[in-house]
Amino acid sequence: MITDPLVHYPVTTATQVALIQIDDYGPWTVTPEPRREMDLQYLQASLFADFAAFVDGAGGYAFYGRFDNMYAVGNEIDPADFERFQRRVRNRYPVTVSIGVGLAESPVEALGEASERLQAAGSAQDGNRREALVIGDDEPADTGMVTVGHFDVVDVTGSLTDRENAIDVSLAIRRATLELATYLRTEYDSLAHFVGGDNIIAICPDIPPQAFDNAIEHVRVETDIELQVGIGRGPTAQAAGEQAKEALEQCRATGARIHGDGQLPADD
Amino acid sequence: MITDPLVHYPVTTATQVALIQIDDYGPWTVTPEPRREMDLQYLQASLFADFAAFVDGAGGYAFYGRFDNMYAVGNEIDPADFERFQRRVRNRYPVTVSIGVGLAESPVEALGEASERLQAAGSAQDGNRREALVIGDDEPADTGMVTVGHFDVVDVTGSLTDRENAIDVSLAIRRATLELATYLRTEYDSLAHFVGGDNIIAICPDIPPQAFDNAIEHVRVETDIELQVGIGRGPTAQAAGEQAKEALEQCRATGARIHGDGQLPADD
Amino acid sequence: MITDPLVHYPVTTATQVALIQIDDYGPWTVTPEPRREMDLQYLQASLFADFAAFVDGAGGYAFYGRFDNMYAVGNEIDPADFERFQRRVRNRYPVTVSIGVGLAESPVEALGEASERLQAAGSAQDGNRREALVIGDDEPADTGMVTVGHFDVVDVTGSLTDRENAIDVSLAIRRATLELATYLRTEYDSLAHFVGGDNIIAICPDIPPQAFDNAIEHVRVETDIELQVGIGRGPTAQAAGEQAKEALEQCRATGARIHGDGQLPADD
Amino acid sequence: MITDPLVHYPVTTATQVALIQIDDYGPWTVTPEPRREMDLQYLQASLFADFAAFVDGAGGYAFYGRFDNMYAVGNEIDPADFERFQRRVRNRYPVTVSIGVGLAESPVEALGEASERLQAAGSAQDGNRREALVIGDDEPADTGMVTVGHFDVVDVTGSLTDRENAIDVSLAIRRATLELATYLRTEYDSLAHFVGGDNIIAICPDIPPQAFDNAIEHVRVETDIELQVGIGRGPTAQAAGEQAKEALEQCRATGARIHGDGQLPADD
Repeated sequence: MITDPLVHYPVTTATQVALIQIDDYGPWTVTPEPRREMDLQYLQASLFADFAAFVDGAGGYAFYGRFDNMYAVGNEIDPADFERFQRRVRNRYPVTVSIGVGLAESPVEALGEASERLQAAGSAQDGNRREALVIGDDEPADTGMVTVGHFDVVDVTGSLTDRENAIDVSLAIRRATLELATYLRTEYDSLAHFVGGDNIIAICPDIPPQAFDNAIEHVRVETDIELQVGIGRGPTAQAAGEQAKEALEQCRATGARIHGDGQLPADD
Repeated sequence: MITDPLVHYPVTTATQVALIQIDDYGPWTVTPEPRREMDLQYLQASLFADFAAFVDGAGGYAFYGRFDNMYAVGNEIDPADFERFQRRVRNRYPVTVSIGVGLAESPVEALGEASERLQAAGSAQDGNRREALVIGDDEPADTGMVTVGHFDVVDVTGSLTDRENAIDVSLAIRRATLELATYLRTEYDSLAHFVGGDNIIAICPDIPPQAFDNAIEHVRVETDIELQVGIGRGPTAQAAGEQAKEALEQCRATGARIHGDGQLPADD
Repeated sequence: MITDPLVHYPVTTATQVALIQIDDYGPWTVTPEPRREMDLQYLQASLFADFAAFVDGAGGYAFYGRFDNMYAVGNEIDPADFERFQRRVRNRYPVTVSIGVGLAESPVEALGEASERLQAAGSAQDGNRREALVIGDDEPADTGMVTVGHFDVVDVTGSLTDRENAIDVSLAIRRATLELATYLRTEYDSLAHFVGGDNIIAICPDIPPQAFDNAIEHVRVETDIELQVGIGRGPTAQAAGEQAKEALEQCRATGARIHGDGQLPADD
Repeated sequence: MITDPLVHYPVTTATQVALIQIDDYGPWTVTPEPRREMDLQYLQASLFADFAAFVDGAGGYAFYGRFDNMYAVGNEIDPADFERFQRRVRNRYPVTVSIGVGLAESPVEALGEASERLQAAGSAQDGNRREALVIGDDEPADTGMVTVGHFDVVDVTGSLTDRENAIDVSLAIRRATLELATYLRTEYDSLAHFVGGDNIIAICPDIPPQAFDNAIEHVRVETDIELQVGIGRGPTAQAAGEQAKEALEQCRATGARIHGDGQLPADD
């Protein structure tokens, strides 16, 4: 199905990804007895809101991951910024966070590096690991253009939100997200994440438009859900993402299923 | 596989579920041009944090759903409370919310009713629908015991978090969640939702322990991921959920895969 | 100056006031070294925002006091509510709070009782005092009508905000606030507090309109600043305050310096 | 009393001060009817918390002023940062903010300039003024060293907090603050503001230690309250303030009433 594999495109750039992990969180949530569930929901959502604002300040994109393990693509975040975020968390919350940072050709490899570095610093449930910040000596390296694909479901309001039981709408979109994210992770070393509503954002290496077309086709075959995607490129996730959002507006306006800068190289 | 179907159990109680929807949110996010993505992430996460705190105050459990469509099980929330939440949102945020409430024998039916009532009040993208609150004349009816199953992954830290790339851990847990939620929705009219880390919470009608066993088995077959579950029952989601969390602690301590009040009827 | 002293009015009711104190806060702010000042500002403001929302849920009025010592008038707050607030703080913040509650004929006496009870439970800088909740055995007693005076500066925008250096506007309003609060505390056992902009809210025992007139005159003589006031009465601070705000709107509309229920007894 | 007037010190630097004003806030709070007071308290405190975090990111110090008029000393904040803050407010809150920025030899003059610029852009209650950002063409000029004095009350816990009615502690500290702020504004063109607890922070031009001694003496004579102060200098308010906090710790440790860099020039 993939006619235009990744290796045809010279990779000259790298992407920085950070993994943020709440220290010793599991034990904390049940000490001295299980804490109130809605308090945990409040804490996790607030922490992610703060994290998103922090990452935004550095031109990046943040994803809530599993809430106790969040991640961010932010090519211009420097170590002092991460320390500042750790300090803020310590001064605002009853928990602390450790951070691993990776830099690699693809977002998935970079997150893999970040994961390994954090794991090497101690277990997520090691009470002695507090506020580790592990960046590695390959930093700072040149980071390059980020490619962002911003997907949503074609006419989600008319076909789902205004018609179906909310649980079925949720399950349908979650299935589409999972199929898309798994496919993009496996085939294109990309990180895709649900961002609310019917929106999914993918952080990708320098992949061709055909890759996005393949992904949309894969989701349709597996789930019967039709996605569209706006594609953007830029020096930061924020710049690329903004372009992707504008491109998605063009999809909505024109009915095209794919729109954005990603198509330009195909014209060569 | 299900040897103990739901109909064997007399259903004498009802569950109240509320669906909260941001009014005209899609258009707002792109007017006059696409709003900054991290600002939207901040807004959605903050709104859910506030919603969780509100629902907690009424003894309920809140789930972020798709963030622009959140829901809550809260048997004791009355109309004045919902109006208060709408007022708070209006006075804190640049958006407003509409709310549909349903009451039915199962959580899924109740959310279905809530969805239909909200849909009847206007489209999610209808600029004229503002702060609708649709409860129906079947309220207030007696609500009864809520059953909560609190699931997590057996040894997630040792087997996944401390070993794998964070994206693969996320995808694995999301797949387990999706399989569990789809199965429980289809077979047992239950609402299951990811709540962070490796935790999934299900709001159920009065189903037997065998149902939870079936669900765990289904997830293992489909995803190779082993779940355990604590079961609780109580007059509110909060009370039932607290019991379920304590029961899950027993699973962790004893190695049992299922623990909790749900097992008591099985002794008969 | 006071022609209509308090004793002419039969006092049949009591007011409940709560004092909230961050535990061991001073030492925490400098351990292991002075914490970032803006982080402390963030923490204090967030904690007060949460406190205001909590108190609102119980029909009360909250004041930020000195931020590490906040207080609330909330006649219907019961002990379980205070425990819930303590739990939320513990689960959201890196600090904990102790609470003293007093019930007395006047707001000032009630806050005095609350202060004494908290002091008896341990010093504000005693590392061993954590989450004390001291209510006393005089509770629950009948609480009665609360009187609220909502003051602001006549034409503050035209005369100050749009004309003067912001620091001079601030100082002028702070001086008016201080003179008003000191006078009302000394002469009428009332608690007055700045609430933002040019607004000051006073929680009073059952004092006559003449008392408010005296207070306004006192501020004018001492500071040359002209205040107006709306007066409300109700079973909760919230109900009384809402009435006071509506009465203040009448002042703005009619040019009257005093408006509100407080005037009704004067017609007798 | 002032033996060492300001003009003896060559002023070679300038300070940047920003005034943030909620647009058309007064009318908004009463439209269509008076909004819930505790909702306003929540909004104002949340907005200030966000503002403090924003200003911190630029090395500055933020003060809540009157909440609807906040200000910040932040020598390194550039116009794009202010636009970013305006965008965040617009995307998080039901209100918007306008900003005036001034640059002058003293903090008071700078805030005066900021005030005038904002006033020239429209009234605080002009519904047509939205998100004005008025910086002036004198920017960017070189800003220099900032002097910060961090004051607190000697033994406040032992003498006041653990002994008196909380209202009387509040009033005493508010009176000390007001006397200090008025004196420093009049005599030394400095901005002083209460920051919680018993702490007052002053942003000063390049004044000698004698000035701080005079201020402390003035407060003692007027209010019988004894203050101590740590003094710091640095290129940003944050750097100067951190030094001042450490110097204040020295006061606490040694019993000295004044400590800090400000004393160094006196040795010449």
